[in-house]
Amino acid sequence: MPYYIGDVIKEEKRLIARTPEKFRDTGIDVKLNTSAEGIDADKGIVRLSDGTAIPYDTLILGTGASAFIPKIPGVELEGVFSLKKLDDAIQIKNFINNKECRKAIIVGAGFIGMEMSEALRVRGIETQVIDLLPRPAIRWDPEFSKVILEELTRQNVIFSGETGIVSIEKGMDFRLRMKSTRGEMDADIIIIAIGIRPNTKLAHELGLQIGKSGAIQVNFSQRTSKEGVYAVGDCCEVYHRVSHRWVHIPLGDVANKQGRVAGRNVAGGTMIFPGVVGAQSFKLFSLEVAATGLDEAEALNSGYHPVSNIIWGNAIARAMPGEKRLGLKLVADRASGKLLGAQAVGTLGAVNRINALSCALWTGIALDEIAYLDFAYAPPVGPAWDPIHIAAQELMRKL
Amino acid sequence: MPYYIGDVIKEEKRLIARTPEKFRDTGIDVKLNTSAEGIDADKGIVRLSDGTAIPYDTLILGTGASAFIPKIPGVELEGVFSLKKLDDAIQIKNFINNKECRKAIIVGAGFIGMEMSEALRVRGIETQVIDLLPRPAIRWDPEFSKVILEELTRQNVIFSGETGIVSIEKGMDFRLRMKSTRGEMDADIIIIAIGIRPNTKLAHELGLQIGKSGAIQVNFSQRTSKEGVYAVGDCCEVYHRVSHRWVHIPLGDVANKQGRVAGRNVAGGTMIFPGVVGAQSFKLFSLEVAATGLDEAEALNSGYHPVSNIIWGNAIARAMPGEKRLGLKLVADRASGKLLGAQAVGTLGAVNRINALSCALWTGIALDEIAYLDFAYAPPVGPAWDPIHIAAQELMRKL
Repeated sequence: MPYYIGDVIKEEKRLIARTPEKFRDTGIDVKLNTSAEGIDADKGIVRLSDGTAIPYDTLILGTGASAFIPKIPGVELEGVFSLKKLDDAIQIKNFINNKECRKAIIVGAGFIGMEMSEALRVRGIETQVIDLLPRPAIRWDPEFSKVILEELTRQNVIFSGETGIVSIEKGMDFRLRMKSTRGEMDADIIIIAIGIRPNTKLAHELGLQIGKSGAIQVNFSQRTSKEGVYAVGDCCEVYHRVSHRWVHIPLGDVANKQGRVAGRNVAGGTMIFPGVVGAQSFKLFSLEVAATGLDEAEALNSGYHPVSNIIWGNAIARAMPGEKRLGLKLVADRASGKLLGAQAVGTLGAVNRINALSCALWTGIALDEIAYLDFAYAPPVGPAWDPIHIAAQELMRKL
Repeated sequence: MPYYIGDVIKEEKRLIARTPEKFRDTGIDVKLNTSAEGIDADKGIVRLSDGTAIPYDTLILGTGASAFIPKIPGVELEGVFSLKKLDDAIQIKNFINNKECRKAIIVGAGFIGMEMSEALRVRGIETQVIDLLPRPAIRWDPEFSKVILEELTRQNVIFSGETGIVSIEKGMDFRLRMKSTRGEMDADIIIIAIGIRPNTKLAHELGLQIGKSGAIQVNFSQRTSKEGVYAVGDCCEVYHRVSHRWVHIPLGDVANKQGRVAGRNVAGGTMIFPGVVGAQSFKLFSLEVAATGLDEAEALNSGYHPVSNIIWGNAIARAMPGEKRLGLKLVADRASGKLLGAQAVGTLGAVNRINALSCALWTGIALDEIAYLDFAYAPPVGPAWDPIHIAAQELMRKL
């Protein structure tokens, strides 16, 4: 539930409402509010929650993922939420609108935790984020986590690192009282955002191969290990073009693309999903935070020989007024000179750089080319030597 | 002199002031305010404007380009300016600060004309732009010129197309009176911005090969046709990686890169300039306008079989508040399926897309890959299906 949640809820409701109409006269029967309770692969039948069953020749699993909820006392109390589905967002919104919410605790400082901290602060709610790890947004370099932490502090969001949730009980002055590994804290609302798990119950029933990531194994056509059964979205793996491994990166844009590829193949076409480079981002108040490719640990793990640097440059020409500081980290392979990953943080232009570098990663070009790439230069949109050029040139000296 | 001119002037002055200090103790003698009046190639001597002469083994020409001034009556009158050098900007600024300037005419609706229109309007000066061509920013598709024209109109800048300058004379109520092919107009200041020409006088004296573009021919090492003589920046050509031709694209970022390549080679290193893809942009009030690669005419001229489309999408997720409409045009080659060029216009994200597509052009990937590139997705920074994906998928259907 990031700050734009109201608009997103409206948009999602609009899309869902349009669904039956969109499929009318297509011969496709769309059953909303109906879940698949079980599959009989031998008979080729899916049993539905409304008691009926439907036969299939081809099956596409888009079972998604669910928020991981730790088994701790009190997690079922009113005021404790997770955020994965549209319904979660609606429930949180209604709760905030209708009940007194003075203080919030967010458990987990990943994407959802960060976006939620903004959403709650914007509503005027005192907000604290706790995480087992020592710093927020662990995917990013410690130097960038510091910038993220500064932004949280500037916005009066308290971050408590190396802190785990132990239990929740009803409170006195506040609705809830949370016991953590570092003492007790009050809250009117608690959001648990410590990651998601792919929904693989049906896949297990079908005997599908599950990858090391815990998500369903698929091939480039989105087909699972079983003939005629496909999987797409948060429930399945995706090919990473930099590590050349199958990983679990549950993001909305990836799910959209996989859905189209599976649909095309099922409908008799031929199409492969070319994979991802791990591009991702979130916005935190005035900060853009983005990354792509591998970090050093992932690179090492894949057998690369990572070397990296961080530069602080300007997103637009130095002569331009306004805040424009941009941090850019590059990771390259000492053996091949190829770019392996990038991270950026700043009030402007971080996503811009990560998108360009995602395209560079996609094609596998080396640092010496990245150092001289041609970008649209004009003082209000970028410096003559872009931070990308500067970072790549500096990193080349370390190869 | 775009709107940020004051800051740019300050920055440039600061850089120039620092130059002697930066080169102190390097053994390099920097002569400011001194021009090369002639070169004696046989003797290996450059004659300077201060009457002295210096010998050389290696010569690097960075003679730049000059604004093209048409030979019309009155062009030398006080209040008529062009804008190429720092001094031009300072003179225009002083003129506006010290003299009454109620009305301005800008001759030429290219980059400089567009940026100047904003600079003058921001100062409260009534501004009219004329151009021989029917629409502003002719590099862009007519559909995008329309958006540019709408922005000009919204900002009270008058545009008069198919209008040429005939002569200028002293005025009565206003300082100047300009005769155009469509009648007479008043102005206190006139800016001539109808393009630049490379400064090749010294190159001609040296007998260097000049390219079809009128700029000095160089090779990938920035060497001219003569051993030991190099050229960089606005005076020389550059290799275009999409047309595979040598062209004249006088931009500051290209000049910077060429300077470094020449310096490296002259100093005994080995380095080539890998060329450009034609990325360019300008900002016009609230609008980002950017392009890269070839347009249809350039593509045809290079022997490609161009096919193109324009889509109107959103720079960020539709659910997000605020203006976010983005126009994106792609040009591809029907024979190879490769992207050849792109243009974008919008209040947000136009440069972001053009930079990513510049990287795609650099590597020469085809539309079917561009249609599934992995970008950093999050609703506040981009839609799940990016305008790039949508445009590429639509254009593939036309191949």
